[in-house]
Amino acid sequence: MSTRSADAVRLPPIAALPRGLRDLEGGAIARRRDAARRVEEVYRLHGFQPLETPALERADAVGAFLPDADRLTSGVFGLRDGDGEALALRYDMTAPLARHVAERRKTMTFPFRRYTVGPVWRDEKPGPGRYREFWQCDADTVGAAVGIPDAEMCATLAAVLESLGIERDAYEIRLGNRLLLDGVLEAAGLGSEDDAPNHVPDAQAAATRLAAFRAVDKLDRLGPTGVEALLGAGRKDESGDYTQGAGLLPDQVDRVMAYVESGSADPARTLQALGGIVGSSARGRRGIEELEQVLELLDSFPCGAAPARVDPTVVRGLAYYTGPVFEAALTFEVRDEKGRPRQFGSVAGGGRYDGLVRRFGGAEVPATGVSLGIDRLIAALESRAGERYAAQGPVVVLVMGNPGASQRAAGELRAAGVAAEAFPTTGGMRRQMRYADRRGSPVVVIEGDEERAAGIVQLKDLRLGSRIASEIRTRAEWTEHPAQETVPRQELVAAVRRMLDRREFPSNSGAG
Amino acid sequence: MSTRSADAVRLPPIAALPRGLRDLEGGAIARRRDAARRVEEVYRLHGFQPLETPALERADAVGAFLPDADRLTSGVFGLRDGDGEALALRYDMTAPLARHVAERRKTMTFPFRRYTVGPVWRDEKPGPGRYREFWQCDADTVGAAVGIPDAEMCATLAAVLESLGIERDAYEIRLGNRLLLDGVLEAAGLGSEDDAPNHVPDAQAAATRLAAFRAVDKLDRLGPTGVEALLGAGRKDESGDYTQGAGLLPDQVDRVMAYVESGSADPARTLQALGGIVGSSARGRRGIEELEQVLELLDSFPCGAAPARVDPTVVRGLAYYTGPVFEAALTFEVRDEKGRPRQFGSVAGGGRYDGLVRRFGGAEVPATGVSLGIDRLIAALESRAGERYAAQGPVVVLVMGNPGASQRAAGELRAAGVAAEAFPTTGGMRRQMRYADRRGSPVVVIEGDEERAAGIVQLKDLRLGSRIASEIRTRAEWTEHPAQETVPRQELVAAVRRMLDRREFPSNSGAG
Repeated sequence: MSTRSADAVRLPPIAALPRGLRDLEGGAIARRRDAARRVEEVYRLHGFQPLETPALERADAVGAFLPDADRLTSGVFGLRDGDGEALALRYDMTAPLARHVAERRKTMTFPFRRYTVGPVWRDEKPGPGRYREFWQCDADTVGAAVGIPDAEMCATLAAVLESLGIERDAYEIRLGNRLLLDGVLEAAGLGSEDDAPNHVPDAQAAATRLAAFRAVDKLDRLGPTGVEALLGAGRKDESGDYTQGAGLLPDQVDRVMAYVESGSADPARTLQALGGIVGSSARGRRGIEELEQVLELLDSFPCGAAPARVDPTVVRGLAYYTGPVFEAALTFEVRDEKGRPRQFGSVAGGGRYDGLVRRFGGAEVPATGVSLGIDRLIAALESRAGERYAAQGPVVVLVMGNPGASQRAAGELRAAGVAAEAFPTTGGMRRQMRYADRRGSPVVVIEGDEERAAGIVQLKDLRLGSRIASEIRTRAEWTEHPAQETVPRQELVAAVRRMLDRREFPSNSGAG
Repeated sequence: MSTRSADAVRLPPIAALPRGLRDLEGGAIARRRDAARRVEEVYRLHGFQPLETPALERADAVGAFLPDADRLTSGVFGLRDGDGEALALRYDMTAPLARHVAERRKTMTFPFRRYTVGPVWRDEKPGPGRYREFWQCDADTVGAAVGIPDAEMCATLAAVLESLGIERDAYEIRLGNRLLLDGVLEAAGLGSEDDAPNHVPDAQAAATRLAAFRAVDKLDRLGPTGVEALLGAGRKDESGDYTQGAGLLPDQVDRVMAYVESGSADPARTLQALGGIVGSSARGRRGIEELEQVLELLDSFPCGAAPARVDPTVVRGLAYYTGPVFEAALTFEVRDEKGRPRQFGSVAGGGRYDGLVRRFGGAEVPATGVSLGIDRLIAALESRAGERYAAQGPVVVLVMGNPGASQRAAGELRAAGVAAEAFPTTGGMRRQMRYADRRGSPVVVIEGDEERAAGIVQLKDLRLGSRIASEIRTRAEWTEHPAQETVPRQELVAAVRRMLDRREFPSNSGAG
């Protein structure tokens, strides 16, 4: 693959990104960093420690956890290195963590609690707000059985959302359990996974169960009618594409649909209804017990009032979950790309994946985790607020004759913590002013030969006079212009600081 | 490629990273972040603005700038996505910037000054301290001709190194110019690139010149004898591998070696010697003029005293440089992996690449930039200091009975900005104490039913008593143990803070 690139050297490259990828500039970067920093701080305060894995893993370490085996392309970016080894870009943060734990389990301290923030890559069809590279913020507790860690994940997620300025009435945490639907399918005669270590699973039944899980997972997007079709024969979407269904019999579909519709505002009533639907299935009963346990623990936590509710339809799309699963959904309305109001829906989720580490061989290591899609969450917050982060440029010192003098002035401002640059090349006054304007500079400094001789410097507040600043062409026009000051040279830094502090928006420090 | 992964689902994956990749944990992550933050702050203060490009580009956008066309594998990780489009992981930050500028030039403000920090990937042979994923911190000025921006890059680089605690006598900036060696080769009868836009280059002569550049670039590693061999027929290394030489005639080799050895401590004398060697070559003379200009500008800058010197052997390995080039080298000795003392050498470098944007079509956009290898620099600093960053764990609240109460105590500590966790599962005292020990916790909190009844809480300073903490098995042993305090429950936060502040090392906030 790499050698092919060498053949292409003679062809002129196209100046465009591959589809579904984007460049990020000042404001968007600042916004993401600020959000990521808040999330990390919450994770850190909760006792998680950082662990970063590389972007590339062995292909089988990623491929073993493919989420959607029924698609032709797997969603994973795969490649071969120069030695022919099959590698893949990480699809999520969970599989690399499982690989790390399987590799180091003998020297690790359990429970192991880690967080990580960074990009993941998915070779999927991009769409509005849907990119093939996006950031996830994950926290996991590995080596602790179902109970406290699961409740703690929900509580941590609530703290994360609130640290991002999402009020308690603007989100809810929806709790489910994979064992519930397992139990329903078992009660419907669709078999079940066997916990015995040497059990050889029935591949056909397992595929049917997974298809049923995926159908239920699409409730938000397709509604009950769509789910019902996907549980049965299949479904044709608006574009005419046909999706093969799970192939359940009508009786079985009815039972699953009763499950899907069993949720209510009252957790006790929901649990009772679930009890009826899972019947005598041991897995189903265990699912109900785990749900009760997590709810009870959450109640005893300091964040007890965090808005958590039982939602049987939360099953999560990834195949590796084994017990309690949860999602955080934003409950406020946003406008979609066509201006239509809609519920924003899920921005984070996670759950228990006790079997994942064992897939690398060795004993089972229980684990649970949460993953937050930070880019999507930022989009929601910006959509709600109707505004975007605007980056502010540096103070620009015009170069009038002596570039060294301008550099010295910029150097003094930097030493005081103010971002500043001397105009980085040569050019007339008009060009330099236009540059400062477009750059989003708050203040321009001018110190030509005359000013130097007189021991003074001139400052101009571009925010106050920005509409006309770019019309300045000559020194005479500059002098007539408002929003400017002449100060002794030695007061340069103090005067610039005064101008910056005058702003109503956060000063110079927000640009980075 | 992706579909292959799907076939592998049934095979048990190997729990290991591909060679040349690594997981990073607490201390190493904190160290890198701290260093990256300092570098970014210097860039920001100098007026550069952030721009982040994705990890993946079209393969030809990366492949067009291959550094080492004479290797069989190109060093680039290439892949095809689900639609068959050829993509590649970025090899450096410069080619993506050139693509960005070529794509957006019509709406951008020039000069455009950007910085970026993040990983790049190289499919190369890993070695000690040499990884296939590593971080670069880049700053670039695009759209400004040779002169001020080049001097500014050197000055910015000096400020970056000093912000990382590298004293002025511990590094030097070595200035060269690609036109010089161009001129030497021209004077030696090896032709030259033609600046005319419709000029069709002589591929053979271009390859010879590039081979000569690479030979000179290896002076640090191979010494003059090695360079001389590579300029001529070729060279066999210690392992017996043979590298083909540039194939210069003996006269030509002599002229290039005279150039290689023309550097001296006195810039004026070096420039004079260079004047003789480039002879009447117009390119060579322009190289000397540019060198003089950059030195003069640097002298006029506030950082005039930054240790810059002319070094004709600095040519940089990448093919795209066109004018002034520079490197920052650490001048202190470090120990290599076998404990042998050696010069650390180059940690950053850059130069002018006026032709790069034009390779995507359109007009020439002049540009210059600097790239700092942060991982390598950190390794040098750690090697010098003989120490590593140690991450500190959170305060651990033991769970004695009621997990909700422990969560409340942890929550109060977090609200005060102290990283804290309740033991994240269930377990006896001995297990919990050992966990806190291994986790690097500074303080353990205990609040069992008895304490709760009495309205008190017990604290233990693990740093004071860490050697014996893991021997505590019972409540009685705990009480007899030193380095502990009993305080009223409502004084929990204040008492923990006191214990943390007692430490000589930075408190709880350094772990993130």
